Amino acid sequence: MANEVEAKLAALGLTLPQPAAPAANYVPWTLANGIVYVAGQLPFKDGKLVVTGKLGDTVSLEEGQEAARWCAMNILAHVRNACGGDLGRVKSCLRLGGFVACLPTFTQHPAVVNGASDLMVAALGDAGRHARFAVGVAVLPFDAAVEIDATFEIR
Amino acid sequence: MANEVEAKLAALGLTLPQPAAPAANYVPWTLANGIVYVAGQLPFKDGKLVVTGKLGDTVSLEEGQEAARWCAMNILAHVRNACGGDLGRVKSCLRLGGFVACLPTFTQHPAVVNGASDLMVAALGDAGRHARFAVGVAVLPFDAAVEIDATFEIR
Amino acid sequence: MANEVEAKLAALGLTLPQPAAPAANYVPWTLANGIVYVAGQLPFKDGKLVVTGKLGDTVSLEEGQEAARWCAMNILAHVRNACGGDLGRVKSCLRLGGFVACLPTFTQHPAVVNGASDLMVAALGDAGRHARFAVGVAVLPFDAAVEIDATFEIR
Repeated sequence: MANEVEAKLAALGLTLPQPAAPAANYVPWTLANGIVYVAGQLPFKDGKLVVTGKLGDTVSLEEGQEAARWCAMNILAHVRNACGGDLGRVKSCLRLGGFVACLPTFTQHPAVVNGASDLMVAALGDAGRHARFAVGVAVLPFDAAVEIDATFEIR
Repeated sequence: MANEVEAKLAALGLTLPQPAAPAANYVPWTLANGIVYVAGQLPFKDGKLVVTGKLGDTVSLEEGQEAARWCAMNILAHVRNACGGDLGRVKSCLRLGGFVACLPTFTQHPAVVNGASDLMVAALGDAGRHARFAVGVAVLPFDAAVEIDATFEIR
Repeated sequence: MANEVEAKLAALGLTLPQPAAPAANYVPWTLANGIVYVAGQLPFKDGKLVVTGKLGDTVSLEEGQEAARWCAMNILAHVRNACGGDLGRVKSCLRLGGFVACLPTFTQHPAVVNGASDLMVAALGDAGRHARFAVGVAVLPFDAAVEIDATFEIR
């Protein structure tokens, strides 16, 4: 039986991915004192980046938001694993760190990262309301448009 | 009666702002286990960015430091709210994350972020001494010159 | 008698530096609830940056990895101090934040930051397995090629 969080996502037409293991010598999440630290996630869907390129260049605001949304989906998939499969154990999304690949002329990073913030609140309700930063960087791994890391509190 | 921290700021001619609510689906701070996570703050003063543009381009080092100082002021204003109005409950500023918008030729990011670090120590004394990073990014939201996020321990 | 972690490093021909104090109004690490927050480290060795410049420009992938490795060495040196000299008190490297200075065309940030991740695991074994992010930034302090901050759990 899917839990309440995954049911909310299903109502949005979204199914959490089984995220791939990191391709290097690190792990997707760590846990200490009930705090989960999630590694920076790229917008992977079915093993492919949904959006590559830079905002203000070839990537539209809407595409950037979709990228942020998929970063958030991968974050939730890892948090589900940290919770032993039950996202109902999430007490709070404490913090998102949003990196947006863009030209030096692009300044709407908050609107891009909203793609992730909105998904967190849609999935988790008040427990999904988080602190965050949103900044514009020169370029991201594999030319991804967005990368987001996260910190959660679980019970 | 203003508490000791706000009195120190007043002696510097500074009054903490009532920070605006975030313009998107997130919150200015979260709290877990006595740790406050403060969202990335831009150098807003009286509802306006005090400095826009990039270091190494149109923004001087002194203007960058002033921007960092106002990021810190907004951070403290949010931490005050997290403390129920009493900054005397701050045990420690644990960490600042400093993002400086700049041209790829500018390398004095630490000197810019000192504008925030110095304010923390001026306001909080030893409790204001923190770990931090300072990096140079392509561009920041609304063309702000500096963005800083923070983590605090409160009692 | 060197402890086990430093013995492993010695077997790799590596000796932890005595890291310099920060040049500004902050501290190299803070501690709350057994969590150590380490300030962003540059690739200093014997008081000099081992690599300056940008990836995708004058800095090769191998040089970037070497820079990341020295960021990790400086991180471990600070964590040793946070542990009162005994790295055996490290429970876990929770998180690394990797900033890579690069041209907007460079996309192999994960491979660069592996220089730090591999060292953590070589030194700490499973306790060194961490969450992390890797992003590409316009430029770093003093034109360093890599900057990495970190969060650890200690006992």
